[in-house]
Amino acid sequence: MKRHFFFLFVLMALTMSGQGYLSPSVNSPDITNDGTVTFRVKAANADTVRLVIDSRLDTLMKHTGNETWSITLRGLEPDLYMYYYIVDGMKVIDNENAHTLRDVKSVMNTFVLDPQGDCPVAVHNVPHGEVRAVWYDSPTLGAKRRMMIYLPPGYEESRQRFPVFYLLHGSGGDETVWLEQGRAAQVLDNLIASGKAVPMIVVMPNGNVDEQAASNMSALGNVQPTFAHKNWMDGTFEQSFSDIMNWVDKNYRTRTGKRYHAIAGLSMGGYHSLYISANQPDDFAYVGLFSPAISRMDQGKCTIYDDLEGKLINQFKQRPKVYWLGIGEKDFLYKDNAEFRKLLDKNRLRYTYHESGAGHEWANWRDYLVIFTQLLFK
Amino acid sequence: MKRHFFFLFVLMALTMSGQGYLSPSVNSPDITNDGTVTFRVKAANADTVRLVIDSRLDTLMKHTGNETWSITLRGLEPDLYMYYYIVDGMKVIDNENAHTLRDVKSVMNTFVLDPQGDCPVAVHNVPHGEVRAVWYDSPTLGAKRRMMIYLPPGYEESRQRFPVFYLLHGSGGDETVWLEQGRAAQVLDNLIASGKAVPMIVVMPNGNVDEQAASNMSALGNVQPTFAHKNWMDGTFEQSFSDIMNWVDKNYRTRTGKRYHAIAGLSMGGYHSLYISANQPDDFAYVGLFSPAISRMDQGKCTIYDDLEGKLINQFKQRPKVYWLGIGEKDFLYKDNAEFRKLLDKNRLRYTYHESGAGHEWANWRDYLVIFTQLLFK
Repeated sequence: MKRHFFFLFVLMALTMSGQGYLSPSVNSPDITNDGTVTFRVKAANADTVRLVIDSRLDTLMKHTGNETWSITLRGLEPDLYMYYYIVDGMKVIDNENAHTLRDVKSVMNTFVLDPQGDCPVAVHNVPHGEVRAVWYDSPTLGAKRRMMIYLPPGYEESRQRFPVFYLLHGSGGDETVWLEQGRAAQVLDNLIASGKAVPMIVVMPNGNVDEQAASNMSALGNVQPTFAHKNWMDGTFEQSFSDIMNWVDKNYRTRTGKRYHAIAGLSMGGYHSLYISANQPDDFAYVGLFSPAISRMDQGKCTIYDDLEGKLINQFKQRPKVYWLGIGEKDFLYKDNAEFRKLLDKNRLRYTYHESGAGHEWANWRDYLVIFTQLLFK
Repeated sequence: MKRHFFFLFVLMALTMSGQGYLSPSVNSPDITNDGTVTFRVKAANADTVRLVIDSRLDTLMKHTGNETWSITLRGLEPDLYMYYYIVDGMKVIDNENAHTLRDVKSVMNTFVLDPQGDCPVAVHNVPHGEVRAVWYDSPTLGAKRRMMIYLPPGYEESRQRFPVFYLLHGSGGDETVWLEQGRAAQVLDNLIASGKAVPMIVVMPNGNVDEQAASNMSALGNVQPTFAHKNWMDGTFEQSFSDIMNWVDKNYRTRTGKRYHAIAGLSMGGYHSLYISANQPDDFAYVGLFSPAISRMDQGKCTIYDDLEGKLINQFKQRPKVYWLGIGEKDFLYKDNAEFRKLLDKNRLRYTYHESGAGHEWANWRDYLVIFTQLLFK
């Protein structure tokens, strides 16, 4: 009778919630202990099926019978992966894999490859920090705005104060992306547990000043995520940044003083980090520019962007502990960054330069986060 | 030049992150101010395209030219909707809509319909509570486990203590579902702002005792969400429940005493709520059973399930303030619940009964949450 009840319950629950996955299923992604990954998709009558793995791979899959297309990949690096299929020209997700993330507006499946159990973006059995979605008040923008906060393991139990790392997203992102694609909570948990990073608070605000929150978390209703925001890189976000710092210092047990403040960001967030730190030279001893969207064309747009060279010279007089620049060799912003390095070199401003493979993509940014975080507050 | 930079940046970012959405796009879901919703999908060469809206609708779409299939719906109730398409038998999501949720293992698109601006599950411009993902210690289960906490607006700024509402998910769910499909944070924000509910803490634990966290948030790696959990409804979760209450009382400014404690859950969570409250009659003055998976076949499985009738009689001697039972008339558990009502009636145990349309589905559970929450702590 118990068994009968169980099966009835499961069957009905499946049926009634309109799952659409009662059709014969395949195992995908099928990940073995050695890190081999097999993707399988049922696509009856399809002519071509392609697998696209974020910016890493776009390949045809093979028809392996029984309406199934598949491909096996070996030797992939431990990391988070995002993928989808293209069936006869139509983008579809893997219905066998419930885990998805979006990159701006594109929804993809995800999995984490961690064959050795040491991938820094995987969840491990270590003490976990707390993640909070909070709404802070920005008097400058005249709005309540959402941001995400990572608190290190033990924060609640201790009376200790902690350093603060401000971590900024790129164009098309929002306050959630460093936790989602960026795996910031997992990276911090793992680095802190292994003693490679010191316990710290990580603050992830929303850098799109025309929205209060990620597009499905704001009162604007059914808005789609977009690259096109008002007041895009016009100085407004940088000018409102002290609202965030004030709110964080008021609401959390933070250590004050520049040696306990870090700021970093990817792409647009790198641009924000560059100008916020240059305009607030007393605030940050640690600056990380991850594939920063550096443009020398912003002068005149806002005083925030005026005289960058002079501001940098002044900032470096006070010797930032770490000024870190990372870029992929295939990044479309590589040239802009090379010019920026020339500017730093010309003025003998000392920075750490990290050149990686690949381009303007999350595989790099997760890696930069792992590297940069280990340098902080030491 | 600025314009040039902007377009270059956007184009490259789109291209390099492998979006796959540069193909000519359509507007979907296209939601007008009066609540009319048009779904459109590009599906060249498709023979049939269907639209499935959670358990509410499964209908053919019309080929409206230019490789596009569409359908327009009017008069839908304000609510959260989940939908997907079936293109020639293959389930696909709407590539024009970046917002998705999963129901157990099935990923679907979502939108919120709020034409009057008064839908209780929509985000409105009201003070927002804080949402936390925390890891609590369960000595009974010998594990650190993840749960979600909603704190009412103003919690951090005040020194006040708050009542606690324990809100439990169903089979196939986890600690995230009441926030995702259940929209608990939005419901609480809106009800508190309008004075219809008192400020309270809402605690959403994970009721699957064989997992520490939602399947993509645990150290188990690439596990898919499932209905099939070990120690499924065998008393283990109920027996470990005091670990959760102890941790919450230790870490939050809670009011103590049964008149400041509510417990409710959907389906399996209703079953958990029934037995936890019956076995801890001194702990909860408010009990909500939302389409509870009530089975009279559990006796002998665990002492937790023994002598329910006797325990209920004892529980009701102490007069719960609200004992609330909600079920849809088409729910496959309707009969079980009718039998349970007979048991309550036979013993003259006073409860509130709410019978709604529809079946075992989220549209009901969101509605029950809105109704039940307004009854609490008054």
